[in-house]
Amino acid sequence: MKRIQIKEIKNHIDERVLLAGFAASIREGKTMVFLVLRDITGSVQITIDKSRSPALAAAAAALTPDSVITVRGTLRENEHVQLGGMELIPDDILAESVAAPLPIRREDIPATKKKPAVPRSELDARLDYRWIDLRTDKNRLLFRAQTALVAAMREFLVQKGYIEIHTPKLIGAASESGADVFKVDYFGRDAFLAQSPQFYKQMAMAAGFERVFESGPVFRAEKSHTAKHAAEFTGFDLEVSYIDSFRELMELEEDLLIYALDKVKSACGEELEKLFGVPLIVPQKPFPAVKLADLYAALEAEYGYHAPETGDLTTEAEQLSREWVQKHYGHEFLFVTDFSAEKRAFYHMRDNNGVPQGYDLLWKGVEITTGAQREHRYEPLRRQAQEKGLDEDVRLYLEFFRYGCPPHGGFGMGIDRLTMLLTGLHINEAAFLFRSPNRLTP
Amino acid sequence: MKRIQIKEIKNHIDERVLLAGFAASIREGKTMVFLVLRDITGSVQITIDKSRSPALAAAAAALTPDSVITVRGTLRENEHVQLGGMELIPDDILAESVAAPLPIRREDIPATKKKPAVPRSELDARLDYRWIDLRTDKNRLLFRAQTALVAAMREFLVQKGYIEIHTPKLIGAASESGADVFKVDYFGRDAFLAQSPQFYKQMAMAAGFERVFESGPVFRAEKSHTAKHAAEFTGFDLEVSYIDSFRELMELEEDLLIYALDKVKSACGEELEKLFGVPLIVPQKPFPAVKLADLYAALEAEYGYHAPETGDLTTEAEQLSREWVQKHYGHEFLFVTDFSAEKRAFYHMRDNNGVPQGYDLLWKGVEITTGAQREHRYEPLRRQAQEKGLDEDVRLYLEFFRYGCPPHGGFGMGIDRLTMLLTGLHINEAAFLFRSPNRLTP
Repeated sequence: MKRIQIKEIKNHIDERVLLAGFAASIREGKTMVFLVLRDITGSVQITIDKSRSPALAAAAAALTPDSVITVRGTLRENEHVQLGGMELIPDDILAESVAAPLPIRREDIPATKKKPAVPRSELDARLDYRWIDLRTDKNRLLFRAQTALVAAMREFLVQKGYIEIHTPKLIGAASESGADVFKVDYFGRDAFLAQSPQFYKQMAMAAGFERVFESGPVFRAEKSHTAKHAAEFTGFDLEVSYIDSFRELMELEEDLLIYALDKVKSACGEELEKLFGVPLIVPQKPFPAVKLADLYAALEAEYGYHAPETGDLTTEAEQLSREWVQKHYGHEFLFVTDFSAEKRAFYHMRDNNGVPQGYDLLWKGVEITTGAQREHRYEPLRRQAQEKGLDEDVRLYLEFFRYGCPPHGGFGMGIDRLTMLLTGLHINEAAFLFRSPNRLTP
Repeated sequence: MKRIQIKEIKNHIDERVLLAGFAASIREGKTMVFLVLRDITGSVQITIDKSRSPALAAAAAALTPDSVITVRGTLRENEHVQLGGMELIPDDILAESVAAPLPIRREDIPATKKKPAVPRSELDARLDYRWIDLRTDKNRLLFRAQTALVAAMREFLVQKGYIEIHTPKLIGAASESGADVFKVDYFGRDAFLAQSPQFYKQMAMAAGFERVFESGPVFRAEKSHTAKHAAEFTGFDLEVSYIDSFRELMELEEDLLIYALDKVKSACGEELEKLFGVPLIVPQKPFPAVKLADLYAALEAEYGYHAPETGDLTTEAEQLSREWVQKHYGHEFLFVTDFSAEKRAFYHMRDNNGVPQGYDLLWKGVEITTGAQREHRYEPLRRQAQEKGLDEDVRLYLEFFRYGCPPHGGFGMGIDRLTMLLTGLHINEAAFLFRSPNRLTP
């Protein structure tokens, strides 16, 4: 008999079926044993009459929570069953995998008349046993939403003729700065882990690929301990040739995000709002855009915020901007432009006044993207690298610009950070497995 | 004016357009200068009359090959133009990026009456300047084909409700064996680069995700120097819960490959055959399957091949099997089953006779997949690990099986290897940027 998923049971009333999943709860009453069986698509009650099926009832009652079972039986409608009005009357229960007592409690247990509330385990314990922690409706939804998001982003680009590239993560030089880079023993010499596919997606432009994207891991050896940083996360990067201005990239990013968020909303927008309490608002075009200096002036005027520096966005300003953009534009997204050249990467193109031709995109007060037109002319690029004290690290990179290179630009996003903002979680719970200075397992 | 791509020019005859791309060739005649402009979609001739546009002609003649230019002008039909019967009469040529003399010759130049043939540069030189080497029709096609292949594989799985996971590449223990693993300095302690997402896709099964896939880099610190091995390549992995047998995985893989290869054939099958001389044959179901011992017996009977060992597939046997399966089944694919437990990973499930419940899939005599049902029961798994001398390295992994884990299995493929087989290239030319013990750049 072929197993069906629980989402399909409504089509099989009064039929004999095979279900499989985790025994989410086991409750023994005087005359009955009740199991809740849970798979990736839902839950169903399994009802066993002790007098009619004593052996089956004893076996069921002896199960431990989260054991994996395969159950054959007949599906019945029963209006007394709270869980979906259906139950499975089993004739066979097979324990595929018996669970030892669970080392964590993944969800709060609310107080009852008889018992006080029991809080769920601390985050660190839950992350230690991440695979058990992931067995919640919320976490399953989170990864379904992320899957829909990334699939839609790729689909949008593939339809437009983008080439997907897979660039190496093992690199010979410490790329952008040399700081915050993981060092690898590469057959007896030093290699480094790529902090982003930046240089290589630009190489694809020099190769004439015109439009490329990549999704893959990026590595940051930063000793950050914030709600939004990780030592390894999944980046989504793209790069486009023959642009006239970074404003084309902003428009492309608007279209990409609208397309993808709309798809996520169709796939699971209601569930996201229900389980996480975070409404998914598909943004309208154009997203508001503001120059950094104007944003600071507005935040000072409206919130009395004095930035310690004005060439870059502070975390506080990012957070304040969330309210500001909502108030003035009714929007969750905000483009910020006109950063100072000092604070931007050397490869950002600058205009005649030295202003970097790029932007940050904030969503709900969190930076999700840095985008820019790149300097594709060898001499200005070499000078800008030198200005930042970069020499040997960019020697190979500079070669990409000596043999013909189209004007181009691009941007990158962090998938985990987008997922974090879709759900309202911190990044350590938005990632499948979080990596930080203190966490390298499981 | 908005740039159009060269594939669109047929729709703009007698119109003024903006084109941009690489100056693929520059030829100065007595009265005319001819450029060939090339973008990702095609090539077009640019024709300049010296007497009518002397300044433009001089500028064009001074261009170096592979310089990137933007050209405004009027498109004309001209039956004398070999290249597509069209030409652009420019009124403006802007050099966006002037190319220095190219350090490599990426293609052979055939002999003419006046000049002998010039061979293209050696592979190593071409890989050193990979971005210049990539500027050929063949290489662009290769990455378009790869994009179509991977997009189709993901699409097939997403439609079936698979969750995409992004597992960490930085891991705390040396995973499967400890050999051939890259070591990383992780905030002062040792970490390792994942040799495959194997353990983590199985963790997703323990988490109840049921069906997952991942595409991402895998790292092998093997000192191999063959046509099909790389130190870093792109893996495509999937894992499925609640299977009864590895034969379900074989069927899934058949469906996946048929779906994806059919999409690639539609997208660029003709071009692949034309440029690489490799016909793309979408395989028929079922793929032939043979037990390892039976394959060896057949190869011995038909080709007099004596295998030095019989528990695993030798490279020679793989190669011979290409002809054998073509002759007996008219097929390019071949499943091989019933390997010896000694030669298979400890986590492969074994039947009562100790036979691993998995397979290899060969395509054109090259192994492209290892698949298997996994041992999900804690005790047998622990014993099998111990048998292989694995202890500390799998301590955490074994934990995934203690708290309930569904029966499951899966397989993995190398994207670069599939691309290699689509094109007939070696892996160092099928990868965007090849990595080997001797190559870490660019």
